[in-house]
Order: sequence, then C-alpha cells, then structure tokens
Amino acid sequence: MAFVIGIAGGTGSGKTTIARAIAAALAPEHVAMLEHDWYYRDRSDLSLDQKSQLNFDHPDSLETSLLVEHVRALKGDRGVEVPAYDFKTHARLPETRRVEPRPVLIVEGILVFVEPALRELMNVKIFVDTDADIRLMRRIRRDIEQRGRTFQQVREQYYKTVRPMHLAFVEPSKRWADVLIPEGGNNAVALDLVTSRVREVIAQGAPPAR
Amino acid sequence: MAFVIGIAGGTGSGKTTIARAIAAALAPEHVAMLEHDWYYRDRSDLSLDQKSQLNFDHPDSLETSLLVEHVRALKGDRGVEVPAYDFKTHARLPETRRVEPRPVLIVEGILVFVEPALRELMNVKIFVDTDADIRLMRRIRRDIEQRGRTFQQVREQYYKTVRPMHLAFVEPSKRWADVLIPEGGNNAVALDLVTSRVREVIAQGAPPAR
Repeated sequence: MAFVIGIAGGTGSGKTTIARAIAAALAPEHVAMLEHDWYYRDRSDLSLDQKSQLNFDHPDSLETSLLVEHVRALKGDRGVEVPAYDFKTHARLPETRRVEPRPVLIVEGILVFVEPALRELMNVKIFVDTDADIRLMRRIRRDIEQRGRTFQQVREQYYKTVRPMHLAFVEPSKRWADVLIPEGGNNAVALDLVTSRVREVIAQGAPPAR
Repeated sequence: MAFVIGIAGGTGSGKTTIARAIAAALAPEHVAMLEHDWYYRDRSDLSLDQKSQLNFDHPDSLETSLLVEHVRALKGDRGVEVPAYDFKTHARLPETRRVEPRPVLIVEGILVFVEPALRELMNVKIFVDTDADIRLMRRIRRDIEQRGRTFQQVREQYYKTVRPMHLAFVEPSKRWADVLIPEGGNNAVALDLVTSRVREVIAQGAPPAR
C-alpha cells in the first residue's frame, strides 16, 4: 500500500515545486509521481477553432476516472501506463509511459481535491496556498518567457477560464486539505514537515518498490 | 538549542488541543510548553470596575518581553520561573513555576506571532485555522459550561473585544505561519506531520534535557 500525498493549489501557487522538492528529498526508488495534467482528454476530433475555445481549467477537461484507476493500481502494487498529452495538438500521444509502484505516491494538480473518489485515496492532502497576485505574476512570467504567449493572450485566458474556474473549483477544494502550505516550494519549514513524515512512513515499512 | 514550535490561532481554534497532542506524542523529558496566557500583566492595582473593562485580547495586555526572555533562556539551556496568573483577581500569584529546558519547546497563544522578537525565536510557526462559526460555538460552550458565564456575558465580550482584536491582530498574524492546520486538535493527519518532524529533530540530536 503506497502512502498517497495529494498536492493541490491554484496556478502559480508553487505546488509543482513542492511536489518535486518532496520527491527530491527521497530516494528515487521510494517515490512515484502522477500529474493530473497528463490525463487531459483527447480532443483531436475538434477543429482548430473549437480547440482554441477549450476550457482547460474545468474538471470535465480531465479524465479523472483513469487517474483514480491508476492510483488504485499503484496502491495495490501494480504498475500503470500513464498517458502523454500534447498541448499543441490537444491530443493524447500514442505512446504511454510506465510508472511503477513505490512506497510513496505524489498526485499533483490544481483540481486533485475536487472529485471524492480521488480525494479518498489520499493519506495526506496538502493545499499550496499562495496569494492570487503572486500566483498571477508567476503565471504571466511562465507563459510569456517559457510558452511564447503574448501578455494579451495570457490576460484573455486568465479572465475567461483561469480565474472563474479557480474560484468555482480550486479555491473551494481547499476545504478538503489536511494542511495548507503558504508559498509552496519556497517554504523550507513546511517541506521539512512533509519529508519527515514521509521518511517515517517509509521507515515504518511501507512495502518496498518491486 | 531547543527546537521551538509556535502555535497560534483564534479563540476556539483548537490550538491548545494540538499543542497538548504534540506534547503527548513525545516523551515528557523531550518537551516543554509555555502558554502566552501565563504572561498577562498584573492588574491588581485596578478597581473592580476598571478590571471589568480590561481587554484581554489586545497584545498590550501581555508581558511578551518576559516570554521572549524565557524562550531565549530555554533555547540557551537555562531553566526559567514562569508566572502564574489568577483570572479571578487579575493578579499574578506570588508563586512561580519552574520550567526546565527540553529539546522541544512549544509556545502557544492567540497572539504569539504578533511580536517579531518572539516570532523570530521559532523554528516552526503553525497557525491553527478554524472557521469563525466553529470557533465561536466552541467558545460559547466553554465559557458557559466551564467558566459559569451567561450567554449574554459571552456575547458582549465577543463583540466588544474578542472579535475586533481577532480581526486586528490574530487574523493578520496568520501571514507569518509556515503551515496552516485546519480544525486544530481533531486533525490527526496534520498532527502526524508535526510529530514526525519533531521526532526527527530529537533523533538528530537536539541537546538532551539536563
């Protein structure tokens, strides 16, 4: 039985950084990671125009049932084939990637606390809680510097889907968190709490990786 | 050097419960506790009428400089004599109580994150974050069932000092927290994170109690 850590939080909250920092603090053979983003539904059937209208911040855009199946499999010590998603074509790639069961499983994404079936598989639910202005500043920087977007594009998407979906789904899902971590990956004190707990769980004998 | 855990949160948040649960999870020789409440200023000079007007929710009602001195002493492996406060007479009792240095020191109170000199002595700052209605329900119950107050008295004090001081001092001090724990002492998952970290700190060789 893997020990499952769920990490949610808004865009730019620092949740990916903290997820990676937790993984990096452990031996590679002790930890597996699943990102909710890998489970976007295949929309290759849509026209270019329809694709440009997609709302990637709504829970329905993700095949969470498949993620639930994979978490159950990994908890049951069975490996899974995770999908790969191409954000350029909005299609699932034909290749999958193998994820093997490990004593600790991190499940990360803005919406991972929304569906009860997923939430209930988690041993610890962490919400990375960062102020909206800091999150926005990080997102603008990432989209402009790393994804080649214009400020105008970032701004339109923010008002159209990112912000409304945050308020409708991400923010209310904070209620399910066992612990809230301000500032995400920059918070070394909180990171120490989580990694100490995980090391203790591993030492107490979560099943070794196969 | 003791490892200092600060625990703040509003009235009824469950911070005392979580402080005691952390202490209970450790060997008695490993943990010392200081409550900010012990450091209320002696007001025995006031008339009965003046005493009834005291605002116990304002930072100035506490001798925090003495608490800072005591935390510094305990971090430096020196025992301290902590004051005892009599809430009936609003006076410090003549007797003090000895607190010996231990590897872990818990400092607890609604206002322990307000003063920088105190905050800066803490290795982990935990804010117990419980909804205002739950906190109020717990406070009314405690004051009526355990402290013999009438609902009317509780209500008056709540509007006059408890709520305004919470909004002015306690709530903004949340910003200094390394981690936020919803629901306080009932949150076993969060408690496990803290106690794991503390056990690790002790195992890594915080100085043994003298």
